[in-house]
Formats: sequence, structure tokens, C-alpha cells
Amino acid sequence: MTSVPAADAAQKEAVLPRIGSAIDVALERERTLGAHASHHFNAAGAALPTAAVVSAVVDHLRLEEQMGGYEAAAQVKDDIEAVYGSAARLLGSDADEIALFDSASTGLRVLLDALRPAAGSRIIASRSTYVSHALHLMTVRDEHDVELVLAPTDAHRRVDLDALDALLADGRPTILTIAHVPTSSGLVEPVAEIGHLARRYGAVYLLDATQSVGHLGIDVAEIGCHVLVTTGRKFLRAPRGTALAYVERRTAAALAPTAPDVRGSQWLAEGEWDVATSARRFETWESSVAGRLGLGVALEEASRRGIAETAGWLTSTGGLLRESLREIPGVVIADPADSRSAIVTFLVEGLPSAHAAALLAERQVRVVSVPATHGQWDLGDRAIASVVRASPHVYNDESDLAALIDGVAHIAREGARR
Amino acid sequence: MTSVPAADAAQKEAVLPRIGSAIDVALERERTLGAHASHHFNAAGAALPTAAVVSAVVDHLRLEEQMGGYEAAAQVKDDIEAVYGSAARLLGSDADEIALFDSASTGLRVLLDALRPAAGSRIIASRSTYVSHALHLMTVRDEHDVELVLAPTDAHRRVDLDALDALLADGRPTILTIAHVPTSSGLVEPVAEIGHLARRYGAVYLLDATQSVGHLGIDVAEIGCHVLVTTGRKFLRAPRGTALAYVERRTAAALAPTAPDVRGSQWLAEGEWDVATSARRFETWESSVAGRLGLGVALEEASRRGIAETAGWLTSTGGLLRESLREIPGVVIADPADSRSAIVTFLVEGLPSAHAAALLAERQVRVVSVPATHGQWDLGDRAIASVVRASPHVYNDESDLAALIDGVAHIAREGARR
Repeated sequence: MTSVPAADAAQKEAVLPRIGSAIDVALERERTLGAHASHHFNAAGAALPTAAVVSAVVDHLRLEEQMGGYEAAAQVKDDIEAVYGSAARLLGSDADEIALFDSASTGLRVLLDALRPAAGSRIIASRSTYVSHALHLMTVRDEHDVELVLAPTDAHRRVDLDALDALLADGRPTILTIAHVPTSSGLVEPVAEIGHLARRYGAVYLLDATQSVGHLGIDVAEIGCHVLVTTGRKFLRAPRGTALAYVERRTAAALAPTAPDVRGSQWLAEGEWDVATSARRFETWESSVAGRLGLGVALEEASRRGIAETAGWLTSTGGLLRESLREIPGVVIADPADSRSAIVTFLVEGLPSAHAAALLAERQVRVVSVPATHGQWDLGDRAIASVVRASPHVYNDESDLAALIDGVAHIAREGARR
Repeated sequence: MTSVPAADAAQKEAVLPRIGSAIDVALERERTLGAHASHHFNAAGAALPTAAVVSAVVDHLRLEEQMGGYEAAAQVKDDIEAVYGSAARLLGSDADEIALFDSASTGLRVLLDALRPAAGSRIIASRSTYVSHALHLMTVRDEHDVELVLAPTDAHRRVDLDALDALLADGRPTILTIAHVPTSSGLVEPVAEIGHLARRYGAVYLLDATQSVGHLGIDVAEIGCHVLVTTGRKFLRAPRGTALAYVERRTAAALAPTAPDVRGSQWLAEGEWDVATSARRFETWESSVAGRLGLGVALEEASRRGIAETAGWLTSTGGLLRESLREIPGVVIADPADSRSAIVTFLVEGLPSAHAAALLAERQVRVVSVPATHGQWDLGDRAIASVVRASPHVYNDESDLAALIDGVAHIAREGARR
């Protein structure tokens, strides 16, 4: 691991006392093997899991090896059922409103399809929409004669609530789809205020919370969304290949899946089948049972750590990072003003973002480059080809932050020499 | 583990000398921890994996724990690419014709949706169709005004080729969807002959090979299907939550995904995106990388063991099981005549199938009950509420077979007493 150059010690000191309080970072690091192996700032890609999460997965794989996949699943049936309850507690919903998926993109796809957007109806999408969902939306627009409108934004690139109000006021059948926090910036959408408008005008409200669950406080009743989709591997610190959705009870009951599956449907006779009324109607039977057990542990750990405490720590750490990086000559913060999340994006003058990320990796500082191809309505619209993204989690200590800030300072000097 | 009663020794001897040859069962058992823990006959549910498959998964989970999920994925990028080649070799296709999924049901759903069945067109489905695909087909029929026809069957309940020829001869746009081997019987559809008809009349041919890949010899060129979908966990002995599809090159290029994903698409500008021409266009970005590495090992092991050798061993063992079970008073083989696969289904007089399976489980004999709700066009059509299903794999030795046969004889006597 790279030692911290003495010249940068003052900068390090500036960060030290301000991280904080409600989160026991030392304890989190004890529980997180990978915290000691690199300076990992890629929670928004896939966060480091705790030892307990990995053990839950590995233990079940060993049980499957011993008993067989179906026999092992039967043995942990109650533990799998408990995952729904854990998810519900974290989101403020009931367990029957939770559906499990292998990826958030699959969840969004299945649920948008179930809404059956019809000719003449309208979809309003936030500029922060992620590429995969955006391509699905544009395909629906092109093939089903649905109008697709990008929600107007305010000076901070967030959804402009007055403009949205004016759009919705015509009362047309509308699906409103919003990314809570984009993959490409630290922006946080005003999701509860948007929910208030959705309810007032009868719009169906989909929330892509891929980057916000496990990161910010989420209460689906307060937000007022009909559907929320998130992934396991990011701020929830769950295994890859896990995801979940909340589908509000009446919404679930009203939305027939386009491809009913044996998981949530019972084929009674030749042309006759029953579909569960719960959100399980959107699931597929086959899954990695081991992965779902790991998701369950991660959900419980997130609840135990405290969502408000975690959110406070993450957003203040994001803010500190932004402040510290902004002071480095040659570094430009790319987040819109007033960004209040743990996703920090920036540019290094003279260095393409992918190259900057590669140089930081040589110093064991793990960040990523996010290209405009992941969000043309955001980065593309801002004429930014790519940004460097750093996303901390509760296992990052002061030495990690110092390594990131020193590393960026170092490569910025290199960029300046080019 | 239950000892074999002396009274049944003669029956055991009858089985012993006839298993065999090209497969080294002792070696397979050495490689398979679970082979020593029970008499496992549920390969058609989820087979026992080898130690090497489980190790590949666990090792990658440990790498993710150490490095982070994205950083670990970057390190095994070439190994993941190799999985496509391994699948292609096993199926007789090229690597660019392979797409990976989390479940065969997801693969079938995505590919049927991509075919965009249109009003006035026709889907012909085999009676062996699995519940989840059947419910999707019926939903497409009901919502898109597509005609859905069940392929007529012959005396062995297989697709009647002459009748299918007569159906297809009208030249209507047709999707032909066939399950190679059903979940509910040992039947094997004449897939190459069906492919011949599909090509002659220009029908699009989907093959659900969930129960046949890793079990029977598969050559997609010989079969002539446009799409083949299978799962990892069954006869391939791969981890749960893995699946793959073959999509013939021109078919893939002609079928736009209904929900393009960042995995196979590049968003170039606001309303402009490129989609890969390969089968990857149907994939979703997020996956269990660990699971896919395990799938790769399982595919390589299946190739190394020899597909013809495995198929020979499995079908002859299935045949032996059927013969032995048929001789037990009170047991009725439920497979159609001339069934030639390693899926063996039967009924025990006086015992509901689920109860029979539970009684066998007490003797460490692992079989399952398959209810008509998993295939109403097959079991329902035959007025069978459920069957007991035993499905061996190459790790089953003579003591396993004896335990199964003795166990069934024992519970059949119990059934007779009721």
C-alpha cells in the first residue's frame, strides 16, 4: 500500500477530525476483510461486503454441495422468507410488497412491462435515468406510440417541481420514473415532493433507488412511490446478482405480470391459472438461494447499523471529499451544486477519467470512470465525456480518505505536466 | 444411511452388472461431496455439483470480499469470456451465439418477447411445455391476439411429425416452441425432425433444453433450432442462478431486444444507441460473476467427461431404473412408452406422490413429487395429479440405485396396507 507523502499531511489533518460520530468505522473495518486490502471508493459500483454476508453465501453453497440445491433450499425456507421482512423493515413497507430479483434492471424491466404503457399515454423520466432503463423507455416510446418527456430540471439539475406540476396538471395518464441518485453524479432528487405531485395528479410513480437504498433514508410511505427498485451490491453491501423491488399493495394487485411464472402463479387447468396478489407475482422461480441469504444478512446489518446514522455519515463524508478535492489545483468537481450524497464526481484537467482511475488504482485507490454512455440525459446533456467517481462507505477511514485526496493531488500534478 | 435389507439383495444384483462402462462413477463420487451424504436422485431439480464447481464460486466470492465486486470482475474478465466458448463447444455453436442469464425462464421470456408475436400469427407449443413458459404463451395469446396451438402428439405423447407437417404447411408466420425433455416425464421429443419441418416451412424454432443439456447429446446445427435455452443447475451440475441461451447468429441480429441493456448496447447520444449484433444483446449487465465462473467449470467438466458417454450412461441408467421399478408390486411407471431419458416418473398405489417422496427422504433417498400444476398440458391432460420423479446422474452408484429400488418397494408395501 502506498505510504502517504509527508507534504500532504496537512491536507490529511484537515479531514481527520470531521468524520464521524454515530458510525464505528474501526468496527466496520474489523468486519470487512477488503477494507485492509485497498482504499476502496466504489460503493456505488459494488461495495465491500462484510464477512457475515460472505459467510452466509458460502455456507449455503456448502450446504448445496452436501445436500443438493433443492434440498438445501427447503432447509432454509424460513430464512428466505425472512429476507422479505428485512427488506420491508428497511423500506417502511410490508413483506408482501417485496419482490426479489437478480438485478435492478430486471426488476425495472418486469415492472415497466407490467404497466403496459399504452398508445397515447405518457412517460415522464428524470434526466438522471440510468442507461438500461432509458433504452427500455425509448424502445417503449418507439414501439408503443407512448410519449416520452424528460422532466425539466432546476438550477441544480434536479427535477423542477413547479415545471413538473405544470406538466402533470393536464391529467393525462402518466408514468413518472425517477432515479433517486444517478450513477453519474451526487445529485439527490426531491423524491417525496415528486411523490406528492404524482399522488395529486394520479401518475404512477416508479423510483429507481439503486444508488440510494443503504445510502440515504428511505421510507416508501413518505416518498409515495408505487414501485421502488434497488440492487443488492451497491450501498446495501449485499452479494452481486441480488436485487429487490417494493410494489405498493394495490399497485401489485392491479398489475398482471406479462410473463407469469410458477414462482407466483398456479396453473390450475389447461387455460386457467391463479396469480398471487402479492409482489411475488413478479418474481421468477429460479435464483441463487445463497445470494439471497447474503442479501438478507446485508439488509439486517444495514438496519442494525442505523439508516439515519449511515446516511449522516455517508453524506457528510461525501461532502468532506468534495470540499477536499475542490481545493486541489486541476481538479473540477462535476457534481451539481448542492449535491448531498456519498457519490462524488470530478474531472482531472489533462487526464481522461479512465486514465485517472487507472493511475489511482496503481496507488491502491479504487475509483471508477463513469462514461456519458451510462447517462446521456445527464453527462451527455452536460457535454461531459466521462467523470471520475469516488463513493465511500462506512469502512473507509481517514487513511483511505487521505490516500484518495493525496492520490488525486498527485495525478492532478501529472495531468498539469501534459 | 439405511442399510439394504437382505430380502432385496437379488433385485440389487440384477442392476449391478449393467451399469457402466464409459463413465468412472467412483471418480465422479470422489469429486462430488454430496454423493456420500444421501442417495440423491434429483438431477432434474438441481444436481449435485462437483467440488471444482463449488470452489470456483467460493474462490471468486473470496476475491470479491478482498477486492470488491467490480475489481474482482475485472480480474477474471478473460475467464468470464471463456464461459461463452465453453458453452458454444458443448452445443456446437460459436461463442457469439451464446447469452448468459440467471434462469432459463428469464432467457425464454426475453427471447419470446424479442420475437414480438404479432396479431394474426401463430405459436405452436409442445404438450411438454413447462408451466412458466406456458403461462407466458397464454398471456401473449390473450393480449396480442396470437393463435396458440398445442402440437398434436403420437401414441408416445411426442410431437406427431406428420400432424405438425400438416399444421405448418399453410405457411402462416409461426413460432414453434418445444421442450426437449419435460419436467414431468422421461419423454424425449424428436427435436431434429421438428427442426427439419421448422426450416422447411420457415417457422421460428425455440427449444427449451432445460432438462436436456448435460443429459443428452445436443448439436444445435443438427437440431436446427433458432433459439435454445437451458439452465445451469440441472444436468449441467452448475450453480443455482445460472442459465444460458444459444441464439443462431442471423436470428440474434434480426431480433432487437425489447429492453436493451448497457451490457449489450451503447448509448451514443440522446436518442441514439447501438446494439451488439451478438447474442449478448439479450443479456443484462448485473450478474453473479461467481456463479458464472462455476457455470464455466461445469461446462468444461461436462465436455471433458464426454457428452455421448454421459448421455449413454444416463439413458441406460434411466432405463434400468424404469425396468426395476416396474417390477415392484404397486408401482406404476408414469413415463410414456419408449421414454429414453434419465427422468423416471412413477406412481405408488395408495400414496400421494408428495407423501411417497417424503417417506423416501426418511431413507435418505432424494426424489421429488412433480404436480400437474407444473405441466397441465402433460400431466393435467393425462389426468395425473402428480408423479414421483427420480433423476440420476453420474455420481449415483449401485448402492444408490439399490437404496432407491428397495425404498420404493418398502413404501409400496406401506401403500398397499392403506
